[in-house]
Formats: sequence, C-alpha cells, structure tokens
Amino acid sequence: MNRTYKLVLEYDGSDFHGWQRQPGDRTVQAELEAVLGRLFGGPVPVIGAGRTDTGVHALGQVASFRAEDKHPLETVQRALNAMLPADIRVRSVETAEDGFNARRRASRRVYRYVLSRAPLAVGRQYAWHPRCRFDVDAMAAASECLKGLHRWTAFCKRDPEEDRYESEVHSVRWEAEADTVRFEITAVRFFHHMVRILIGTLVEVGKGAMTPADFRAVLESGDREKAGPTAPPNGLFLVRVEY
Amino acid sequence: MNRTYKLVLEYDGSDFHGWQRQPGDRTVQAELEAVLGRLFGGPVPVIGAGRTDTGVHALGQVASFRAEDKHPLETVQRALNAMLPADIRVRSVETAEDGFNARRRASRRVYRYVLSRAPLAVGRQYAWHPRCRFDVDAMAAASECLKGLHRWTAFCKRDPEEDRYESEVHSVRWEAEADTVRFEITAVRFFHHMVRILIGTLVEVGKGAMTPADFRAVLESGDREKAGPTAPPNGLFLVRVEY
Repeated sequence: MNRTYKLVLEYDGSDFHGWQRQPGDRTVQAELEAVLGRLFGGPVPVIGAGRTDTGVHALGQVASFRAEDKHPLETVQRALNAMLPADIRVRSVETAEDGFNARRRASRRVYRYVLSRAPLAVGRQYAWHPRCRFDVDAMAAASECLKGLHRWTAFCKRDPEEDRYESEVHSVRWEAEADTVRFEITAVRFFHHMVRILIGTLVEVGKGAMTPADFRAVLESGDREKAGPTAPPNGLFLVRVEY
Repeated sequence: MNRTYKLVLEYDGSDFHGWQRQPGDRTVQAELEAVLGRLFGGPVPVIGAGRTDTGVHALGQVASFRAEDKHPLETVQRALNAMLPADIRVRSVETAEDGFNARRRASRRVYRYVLSRAPLAVGRQYAWHPRCRFDVDAMAAASECLKGLHRWTAFCKRDPEEDRYESEVHSVRWEAEADTVRFEITAVRFFHHMVRILIGTLVEVGKGAMTPADFRAVLESGDREKAGPTAPPNGLFLVRVEY
C-alpha cells in the first residue's frame, strides 16, 4: 500500500543551489529524492512548500511525497537522517491525507531575515551585516504598511509564470537582541526574492536614505526600480509552513 | 615609535587547525601574523591568550604584539578586517602598557560549551548533539564540585610542559533554552582538552551512566582513565579573557 508522507526539514542552505532539483547542481530536493529512492527502491518525486533560493536556509521546510507504507514512520526518519548529508535534517515524518500537496495546501509561510550590526565570524553564514548603521525603529515603522493584501511587483523579481503578484501579509515582527536584529514576516505566499528585496529596501530606510513614507510609495508604485537592492540570501530562513 | 597593541578577536574555528602557528597548516595566528606583516611592513609575532585547538571557536580571544604606532587604532582595525579572511574578525584594537603579554597577564578565561538536544543542520558547526537524552539538572549538580582550586589531571590531556595541573575555577553556569544547553566556566587557566573532557564526562552523568558522586570521585582520583570521552571541538568557544 502507498501512503502520503509529510516531512518537516531543516537545512543549511550555504552549500546548496537552493531547494529545486536542476541538472548538475547540488540541491536539497535532489539530495532528498536520491535518499528516498534508495530507501523505497524506486523514484520518489518530492514536492516542497517553498522553493528556497541558493544560499537560503530552512528551519521548517515542508515536503510531501507518495511511497509505500512498508516502514514505520520513526524508521523512515531515522533512516533518512542516517543517509542524508549533515546539512539536511528531517525534523519530523507524518502521514498526511491522500492528495496532500505540501505546496498547494500551504495556507501561510513564515520567513525570517537576520541582520547583524557587527561583522561576524561565528555565524556569518546565518546573518547579513550591512556596512552601515541602521535605525530599526524607522524600519519597523516603515514595515507597518506591508500588512494586508497588496500587489508585490515593487518587491519581487519578475516571474514568467506569475500574473497577479497578489498576496496577503498577516504579520510583520521585529526583534532586536544585542547586535542581532530579526525580521519575521507571515504571508499566504511569497514571490521570488520578495523578503530579500523588502530587507534591502528597509535597510535604505534604516540608514536614512528613504523615509517610511517613501517606502510606502515604493510599495504603491509597484515599480521594482524604485525599491532597494536585493539583500544577500544567507540572512534568510524559511521558518515554518502552516496548513 | 613602537607600541604594544591589544586585539580582541572573534573567529570561526571550523576551518582552522587551531590558534597556534604550525608549518603547513591554516591557523589563526599564522593568518593574523601574515596580515600584520603586510600592514606594518615586517614580521610581527603575536601572542594569544588561549591556544584554542583545531575546530574550537572564539568570541573574545585576546592577542598582543609590538609594532610601529604609525596608524591610528581605528585604521588598524579597519585594515585588518579588510585583509583578514571572513572567518576572523577584529572586534577591537587598543594600546596596552609596555610589556603587556596577552597570555601571561590574563587573570581569568571564560569558555562556553554548547550542547544541542536535537540534531542540527543550521548551526551544526557551533554545537554538539550527543546521540542520547541527557538530564541537565544532574549535570549541573555534578558540576558544582568543580568550583575552587583543584588538580585537573583527570580532566586533561598530559602536557610535557606542565607539572602541577592546578587552577582555580571561579564559576560554573548552565543555561537551557529550547533544545540548546550552554555551559560556561570561568577559571584562572585551563589545561589541554579540559573543557571538552569535562563535558564528555558530564554527558555521562546526564545520561545516567555516572552519578554526581561518581563525577566528584573522578575529579579527586586525578585519573584521566576514569573520566569520559573528549567532547568534539565544535561546541567550544573561548568567550572572554579578563586582565
């Protein structure tokens, strides 16, 4: 008998060309499918909730696949963790209802971006240090306008498969502790480079090159040219996917 | 004119064969001396407060050296950070009194060891996940006996240059937060592998293979054979050096 599996995955994106399988590149999906193929003795295509880019990390990526129910769930988790490389860990394995699809069924995704005020040696893979001072209060004030339903064309890379670029942001949260600043954003869905362009633009606000009102005007303009640069991938984490 | 410099350094030990210069190996001291040599136009031997081993990290290693006072301190810091590899950062540069020696003048050193209850992908370079459950309360109870002046032969690797193996531990502190457990120990000085053997043995207590009374008996025996295994280097951090 086959069943549908739901995996929660953590990975360090530093040495991956992102989530999605592509010939010749080391990707999380390809590593996972290779190991599942060995475990189940045949090809096992996997669906991921979020297609993280090169260098982006995940604390709670969700993946689904169909395969035989010949092993207990705990055995599957142990076997996967024994076979997977150290930069991917399976956090949990569950049975999902038939037809469950990790991408299409996701109702909310939570991303975190980590900024550091100081240059880091320890943990430099997991934070971006902009080479300027930045005012988090100004950035937090500017980010208030992100909540709600918007068209995100100012804050994403064009995608030939996309036409509406609409999504609702449920919450935006800031946390500062010593030299570390964490930005967390929850939305129904995210577009390509969205969090990284938001952060790149919010840092412009933080360093005083843009006001919160300018920032809102960028959002309303829908014009990518008016937004800031794309922040580096290593500060970004897919934290959680909700269903 | 020459002056004595005091640097505070952070480094990610993952890709270093430790602090100390040795032919053919990538070490923190060798990288730092190479860059200082370029900056000051001649050899600049450096003294480090703690000789961290291969794979051990530092948040606040202290190094001293003598060199010309031709650059302002801020310029030295900026130049060093521009020239050093990304896994070493200079946190501060100060002038010290003549004759200051980062190793001999140190009065206390603070080390941290980070344990994780869960296997990690993100941050696996910075914590050890023992493959067993462990009871932190038992470990903390056992570690109380470490405070004070002791001979540490049970908890260190033999060192031909050492004869007394005596040092005073000022404090021992535990902190648990989600799946992460942090152990912090302050002492006048530490011997080779001391914190790692302490942790390896405390994990034996944590998993119930040893009682706190057994642990104290190991300390009193002075016998390395009675202690546990040496914990891996990647969970260890030289946090701070006091003068």
